[in-house]
Amino acid sequence: MSQLVADLVDIAGSDAVLTGEDVSSRAVGIWRPQGIQAHAIVRPRTTEEVSAILKLCHDRSQTVIAHGGRTGLVEGADTVQSDLILSLERMNQIESVDDVNRTMTLQAGVLLQAAQEEAERHGLLYPLDIGARGSCTIGGNIATNAGGNRVIRYGMTRDMVLGTEAVLADGTIVSSMNEMIKNNAGYDIKQLFIGTEGCLGIVTRAVVRLRELPRSQETALVAADSFEKMPLILKHMDAYLGGTLSAFEVMWNDFYRLVTTPPAKQRPPLEQSYPIYVLIEAMGGDQENDKVRLEDALAEALDKGLAKDATVAQNGDQRRQFWAMRDDVEQIFQYDPMFIYDVSLQVPYMERYVGEVRDNLKRRFGHHQLFTFGHMGDGNLHFAISAGKDESAHHDVNLCVYEPLRPIGGSVSAEHGVGLEKKPYLDVSRNDTEVKLMRTLKSALDPKGILNPGKVFAA
Amino acid sequence: MSQLVADLVDIAGSDAVLTGEDVSSRAVGIWRPQGIQAHAIVRPRTTEEVSAILKLCHDRSQTVIAHGGRTGLVEGADTVQSDLILSLERMNQIESVDDVNRTMTLQAGVLLQAAQEEAERHGLLYPLDIGARGSCTIGGNIATNAGGNRVIRYGMTRDMVLGTEAVLADGTIVSSMNEMIKNNAGYDIKQLFIGTEGCLGIVTRAVVRLRELPRSQETALVAADSFEKMPLILKHMDAYLGGTLSAFEVMWNDFYRLVTTPPAKQRPPLEQSYPIYVLIEAMGGDQENDKVRLEDALAEALDKGLAKDATVAQNGDQRRQFWAMRDDVEQIFQYDPMFIYDVSLQVPYMERYVGEVRDNLKRRFGHHQLFTFGHMGDGNLHFAISAGKDESAHHDVNLCVYEPLRPIGGSVSAEHGVGLEKKPYLDVSRNDTEVKLMRTLKSALDPKGILNPGKVFAA
Repeated sequence: MSQLVADLVDIAGSDAVLTGEDVSSRAVGIWRPQGIQAHAIVRPRTTEEVSAILKLCHDRSQTVIAHGGRTGLVEGADTVQSDLILSLERMNQIESVDDVNRTMTLQAGVLLQAAQEEAERHGLLYPLDIGARGSCTIGGNIATNAGGNRVIRYGMTRDMVLGTEAVLADGTIVSSMNEMIKNNAGYDIKQLFIGTEGCLGIVTRAVVRLRELPRSQETALVAADSFEKMPLILKHMDAYLGGTLSAFEVMWNDFYRLVTTPPAKQRPPLEQSYPIYVLIEAMGGDQENDKVRLEDALAEALDKGLAKDATVAQNGDQRRQFWAMRDDVEQIFQYDPMFIYDVSLQVPYMERYVGEVRDNLKRRFGHHQLFTFGHMGDGNLHFAISAGKDESAHHDVNLCVYEPLRPIGGSVSAEHGVGLEKKPYLDVSRNDTEVKLMRTLKSALDPKGILNPGKVFAA
Repeated sequence: MSQLVADLVDIAGSDAVLTGEDVSSRAVGIWRPQGIQAHAIVRPRTTEEVSAILKLCHDRSQTVIAHGGRTGLVEGADTVQSDLILSLERMNQIESVDDVNRTMTLQAGVLLQAAQEEAERHGLLYPLDIGARGSCTIGGNIATNAGGNRVIRYGMTRDMVLGTEAVLADGTIVSSMNEMIKNNAGYDIKQLFIGTEGCLGIVTRAVVRLRELPRSQETALVAADSFEKMPLILKHMDAYLGGTLSAFEVMWNDFYRLVTTPPAKQRPPLEQSYPIYVLIEAMGGDQENDKVRLEDALAEALDKGLAKDATVAQNGDQRRQFWAMRDDVEQIFQYDPMFIYDVSLQVPYMERYVGEVRDNLKRRFGHHQLFTFGHMGDGNLHFAISAGKDESAHHDVNLCVYEPLRPIGGSVSAEHGVGLEKKPYLDVSRNDTEVKLMRTLKSALDPKGILNPGKVFAA
């Protein structure tokens, strides 16, 4: 047993510390089956234990990487053999729900789906929703500022977090468990821990804002004859539906065919011949009237020639089928290797940009597979791209996708973060002074650089 | 002419620099007619000029205080004779509006109302709305993370700002003019400039998010027989109205009487005998149906015994009268001196807390005037308190209001900020490690302490 492991056992108990096969038998991440490399995994149960562990590591300049559900897609929690992993998996308690204040206080290791379900038991909604809901954690959501399907209505994780408790690199506990929507008493320091990928501190607990549980949930699939109709459909639906529009998920023909053709489970609710589709959802307060409202809005969109065809889910089963289609992203793994992208850009540039990516791929690779979908209402597109059997194509595919973002101020990461994977491309989206300021923060909060070292930008 | 003034003239031109009476003839702030004390006011026209000015000041350790519309209420932009004021008043250009991307790019000196009106000309909404709209600036809104009447629906300024351009203490321009709703490419450094009261940098330009202009705006005044009904009315209306609820402004009887009794201009739309009232607004997509929806929701609230009486504005004039009543805060100046508060706390504690404040005032002062109102949906209460003619009562009144917040985790500033006024009470709401982390940020970004020195917390 190493001295580090012995000291960790002293702090957190022997059942808290994993070594050897208990480490290497864990997969690095979703869709990445290789085993974790690390000195040990420590699994504290309290903020105080996290503090003691970080103090120990700080004294020894021991690197520490926080682990949540390991569902990130940018190598943001990757480790090397000399690293210590601090897993929040045993800090999985929902501490309280306040029905009147509409807040939930919980530990960072709580699964997103557990938080959603607990809110629902109180007639409330925790609106964050992403495909990884069953295995990702609240702490991971905070560290990556997770987005997902309902950002257009409820914002990203940043917009839902009222308070955090975090531990700094040197073990200092910064408890800032604000429970109010508004609190301008000094700098809002919790922002330091949201979306900073575990580089400035480790979040151990949080207070999140809940909403009233919608009484209606209406879902439609709409087809259009060109991309340029999509922003017009978005504006039309958004205005018509008032504040109830909760999702606007665009699928290009390539993606739509993929997820509605065997071996995919779902069949196409609308013909496969349109160039573009959008899954629209509204969540409101009155089931009957909200459905009529959605149908009226769609009828007007069809009348005006914005949409070519549309179908409204007639019941919960149909709604789940529509979403199962949109969520069946794993169909892309019919191709291997498959590279996944998460970019954002201004909506007016979107059509031209997608064309440029396609042209770049054609020019560089000739034959390739490109699937395009995304949260268009947020300016967020996802690509899944296969360019042959050679893993080494990854860098060239990256250039095909990222370089056209540079002149239009687009982002190489809308919601997935940077991690190691996008670090070489950060300069596409951030200028030198922005990165220098990030470095200033890192130096101020973690001068020894022990927290998630090497992620996001070069030290 | 001092050397500083000569150098400022070199940078920005002689018409950019004000001294002597041109400085002292300006009022310190709204409701504070005394003249400004400062070495000079410099009024740059570009970010580059701001950068050159700050570089000059940094080299000389010259203190700099940014001025927007001077409508802040916490002495957050106060100066002393040796300070330089950097006013953004000539950086008042709206640079562009993108109707499809639904964003506006503008300089920091643009008036809030000008931004609102420009958005409206494009069929869009800039949802931030506060009483000072006609004189406050976008830059001031950002520096103070302004809130206002529609936070419950659209969030605070933080939630509307997509990008900023800011100048650091040493003159470094940090241009981070992101135009997307989602951008997780590295730390979100604009958060450093939002709500930090000009202490970490001076914002010169911004990109803000716009929304579709609501097609309906329905307003109701509702009376209840006890405070405890209010959170229930909020939950009921919020759930019933789906996503359209846009304001929930509570008025205690003391405030309601004040603003519906001469010399106030408005007459009471509902009897003055109820202990508590709420102004409710919904903004939606369908004028006719949204009005019916609001009326149905109110009918149910009356049926259930949540509300005792209610009236819906029948047209735009009535709606404006309802709001004129709520906004007629200046009636409090029938009493002088009058102290104004802006606290936030968890909704379930609100009734007991207001009682404690009342008891504290009675015990300490005997006769006093207390007016209570606020954005209850956000946990935000305002008090206006008069405790006799003696200005020196201010500190004791502060203690009556702030001390009961300490055990319940309330905030001494929901939306006004800290400035100088609330600095002595920051410890009610923030613990030592939170303030220490604020100090770490201040030291990292402004090591010489030249930006808005002495504000928010002690150096």
